[in-house]
Amino acid sequence: MRIGKQDQAFTAIATSDAESITVRGHDLCGDLIGKIDFSDYFWLLVIGEKPTAAQRKMLDACLVAIAEHGLVPSVQAARMTLAAGPDAWQGAMAAGLLGMGSVVAGSSEVAGQFIAEVLADADANGADIDAAAVASLKALKQARKKVPGLGHPQHNSGDPRANRLLDIADQLGVSGRHVSALRTLAEHAPGIIERPLPINVSGAIPAVMLDAGWPLEALKAVPLVARSAGLAAHLYEESLRSIGFIMSHEADQKIEYDGPSSSLQDTQA
Amino acid sequence: MRIGKQDQAFTAIATSDAESITVRGHDLCGDLIGKIDFSDYFWLLVIGEKPTAAQRKMLDACLVAIAEHGLVPSVQAARMTLAAGPDAWQGAMAAGLLGMGSVVAGSSEVAGQFIAEVLADADANGADIDAAAVASLKALKQARKKVPGLGHPQHNSGDPRANRLLDIADQLGVSGRHVSALRTLAEHAPGIIERPLPINVSGAIPAVMLDAGWPLEALKAVPLVARSAGLAAHLYEESLRSIGFIMSHEADQKIEYDGPSSSLQDTQA
Amino acid sequence: MRIGKQDQAFTAIATSDAESITVRGHDLCGDLIGKIDFSDYFWLLVIGEKPTAAQRKMLDACLVAIAEHGLVPSVQAARMTLAAGPDAWQGAMAAGLLGMGSVVAGSSEVAGQFIAEVLADADANGADIDAAAVASLKALKQARKKVPGLGHPQHNSGDPRANRLLDIADQLGVSGRHVSALRTLAEHAPGIIERPLPINVSGAIPAVMLDAGWPLEALKAVPLVARSAGLAAHLYEESLRSIGFIMSHEADQKIEYDGPSSSLQDTQA
Amino acid sequence: MRIGKQDQAFTAIATSDAESITVRGHDLCGDLIGKIDFSDYFWLLVIGEKPTAAQRKMLDACLVAIAEHGLVPSVQAARMTLAAGPDAWQGAMAAGLLGMGSVVAGSSEVAGQFIAEVLADADANGADIDAAAVASLKALKQARKKVPGLGHPQHNSGDPRANRLLDIADQLGVSGRHVSALRTLAEHAPGIIERPLPINVSGAIPAVMLDAGWPLEALKAVPLVARSAGLAAHLYEESLRSIGFIMSHEADQKIEYDGPSSSLQDTQA
Repeated sequence: MRIGKQDQAFTAIATSDAESITVRGHDLCGDLIGKIDFSDYFWLLVIGEKPTAAQRKMLDACLVAIAEHGLVPSVQAARMTLAAGPDAWQGAMAAGLLGMGSVVAGSSEVAGQFIAEVLADADANGADIDAAAVASLKALKQARKKVPGLGHPQHNSGDPRANRLLDIADQLGVSGRHVSALRTLAEHAPGIIERPLPINVSGAIPAVMLDAGWPLEALKAVPLVARSAGLAAHLYEESLRSIGFIMSHEADQKIEYDGPSSSLQDTQA
Repeated sequence: MRIGKQDQAFTAIATSDAESITVRGHDLCGDLIGKIDFSDYFWLLVIGEKPTAAQRKMLDACLVAIAEHGLVPSVQAARMTLAAGPDAWQGAMAAGLLGMGSVVAGSSEVAGQFIAEVLADADANGADIDAAAVASLKALKQARKKVPGLGHPQHNSGDPRANRLLDIADQLGVSGRHVSALRTLAEHAPGIIERPLPINVSGAIPAVMLDAGWPLEALKAVPLVARSAGLAAHLYEESLRSIGFIMSHEADQKIEYDGPSSSLQDTQA
Repeated sequence: MRIGKQDQAFTAIATSDAESITVRGHDLCGDLIGKIDFSDYFWLLVIGEKPTAAQRKMLDACLVAIAEHGLVPSVQAARMTLAAGPDAWQGAMAAGLLGMGSVVAGSSEVAGQFIAEVLADADANGADIDAAAVASLKALKQARKKVPGLGHPQHNSGDPRANRLLDIADQLGVSGRHVSALRTLAEHAPGIIERPLPINVSGAIPAVMLDAGWPLEALKAVPLVARSAGLAAHLYEESLRSIGFIMSHEADQKIEYDGPSSSLQDTQA
Repeated sequence: MRIGKQDQAFTAIATSDAESITVRGHDLCGDLIGKIDFSDYFWLLVIGEKPTAAQRKMLDACLVAIAEHGLVPSVQAARMTLAAGPDAWQGAMAAGLLGMGSVVAGSSEVAGQFIAEVLADADANGADIDAAAVASLKALKQARKKVPGLGHPQHNSGDPRANRLLDIADQLGVSGRHVSALRTLAEHAPGIIERPLPINVSGAIPAVMLDAGWPLEALKAVPLVARSAGLAAHLYEESLRSIGFIMSHEADQKIEYDGPSSSLQDTQA
């Protein structure tokens, strides 16, 4: 079955023959393995060119910030999956990454789109970021929606990872329009939304990465690759000291059945 | 429902409160973000301690070697999945990682276990690796099974990534018993199995990583984390220049239907 | 970490103790196993009550209509995944279901939401479905978006599955407001969008299921459960006669590398 | 890249052109939709022929027996995944199915292979199932391995679903060699393994399905398709009354951090 357009049958990432493997125009064995570290290679793979020192440092800081945050839901899902199928690490890691949806760890993407829209609105109205930020916050308030990139269920007084990433972006000279827009949003948000709304890590990551030159369409890659490392640590620990079924038992105990009892229904039928 | 033992309700990876996040005994914001690169952090997360320079270089070399090899089946699956659900990167990346089973990219784990078994056999019989390698190869030959870590469908004359990784391990002083066992297997294999069987990248990775001190039970993490970066590049390209449905159409065209025709069966019924 | 509201810790689906299992108020062993078929049970599980004869027939018709359509992208992804990891059926089936995104087979959900919106618009404006349909089609035309539930890449002259499902809904007396709205959309679409746009199976399924009483929020369950059966057939065939790597090789051949060559870049560097 | 044999480029499941869709030799629209229920269609898709009445009843009984068992780990993983990404049902269902590994719900496959091996051993030694069962149980005892298909963490006095399925198989005249072998194993197991080991549902399902003519290689399809229906019910309930994060919070509370504290390590460093 032919679905969609069929006219651009190209890839620019890698090619290989019996003797060599070429990745983004570099010979994998001669020029990359042993000569480039994984963060640089990740940038090269996605963007097509090696990062500058500032770009690499910004990427490393974001990857380290988001890779691990304890027994979050996606980690629990992964560990329960490994406990149930110890021979399929790939299944457990997949189950963990599937939990990076729009609500929790995958929210960097949503926040990045929000910041980009605020900036686009500002551009359309003569570059006044303040006015665009206020307008978008009022619209979210009216629609009773959350502000992407602001607020955190645990770190109410401010997400320390976010502040650290913004500091680093300032030090590296990476901070630009997106960081500025995020800070403007954070300045106006408490007054408009009427609750404490510190910048969270899912707001800081897109702001600093977009300012570093990472594309909006690839933002989701940052938390996904980062979390694959955190999940690896949890899966290894699970294989040595399993808590998947302990967590599952505890969670099950907490939830009460409030459906009809079978005896009642049987008598009635 | 209570499944399995319930007595070790611990994790040693991370903990957090409202003010701070601790990972492997380090303060995430004060001591890790901006101060450690992603490869070091990956090692710290999994192992619990920061790597030495040689360990980090060995890990980086392996991650770079395995992250990307063009439009392999798992990449195709990921790109088709993104084409069908462009709003769920996590689903497309999960589909890609699920293809890292025992046969293709996930075979590092199988090869690592094989090398470890050969060494265990050698230890049990007075440390003669040659004899243990020959015995295990003959057993595989008799069972008509593939030799884990040797041979490649494309690089018949030798997998250039494997040779490069082994060279680096030698240069770094990492090469030890596992590399030695792999080379012994490669030496005897062509004579016993009767076909060319160069060391492949899925054999070299476990050998050099085990010699670098990475645990056998976490071997699968190396190709999984590495491939998440390659998949990220492909998903970004897919979002800009989709080939998922082009590949699918081409693949479909190649396969012929050889079931019964409906008209025939209708007439008979 | 406490995320979201924590105050409704209930489930009404199932409970069990050492002696019995209760599902939706029925004793699983005494009243369900051997006494209810799988389609009825699927309805009971999701809705909480057993279906009427018309509801069951409508559900069966939809499940049969959507379970299998040959080597579509999600089936290819599943078969490639099984070929790469033959010991993990659950991973291959997961990879297949992940391809049921908003674009292809999962589009029933999108079409159902669209039909519901058209009806809500009509209700808000005095129940004139014609006017609401025309307005929504013009809005899609202006936004250059596809019309959910109409059009098909292969069956240009009309998707035979859609017509069959609508006929069955008429015969069963199931057809109501949603089927009517879908037909109204199909009537006006070619004139407004200016191309042939027959009702497709992803439009017919939500229309007939919503009219049968199935909830909008559970629409995605119909194609997902249906396709799990089709995927099972493909995975069994793959385990006997593997085509996963044949398809992958063919797809790879079709795509050309248009990135820089490594020799060129090496010389420049 | 060419992996594996490339010479059997066929499928016998489905084919289609612009006018019609043929599945297993039947016209989908003319002969299947509205004329066959989902259980029959599932059998037809996998096996290639429609089931007899006894085969269909056996399949329905197994699907109903295994579709739902409350908040088991895989259901929890699915609900946490939906809570984190409410717009991707396919991801949540995939996460749930990934938990059907060798240990929990996917163990039907393992038990089926075990029963088949006992029968093969018996055949090789003159059809004495008793002797083969005793020998295999003693081997498991010595290897300290679990007996596939026997024992249950909750239903110690006997899994009521298993007994019901075996009764139905007897009534339908389906019970044959596999049911007989399973009963023989259950008879000898308590004496040899020295603990209560009633037949569980993952033992009964493969025994009755294999006796009904379902192939060993497709056994995993039965729990996977069945659970997709149970997961659908849970995902719908999750979308209305979310407990994903409630369960996750409760599970997290249970697990204590026993890694080093950051202050200690900071002082030392």
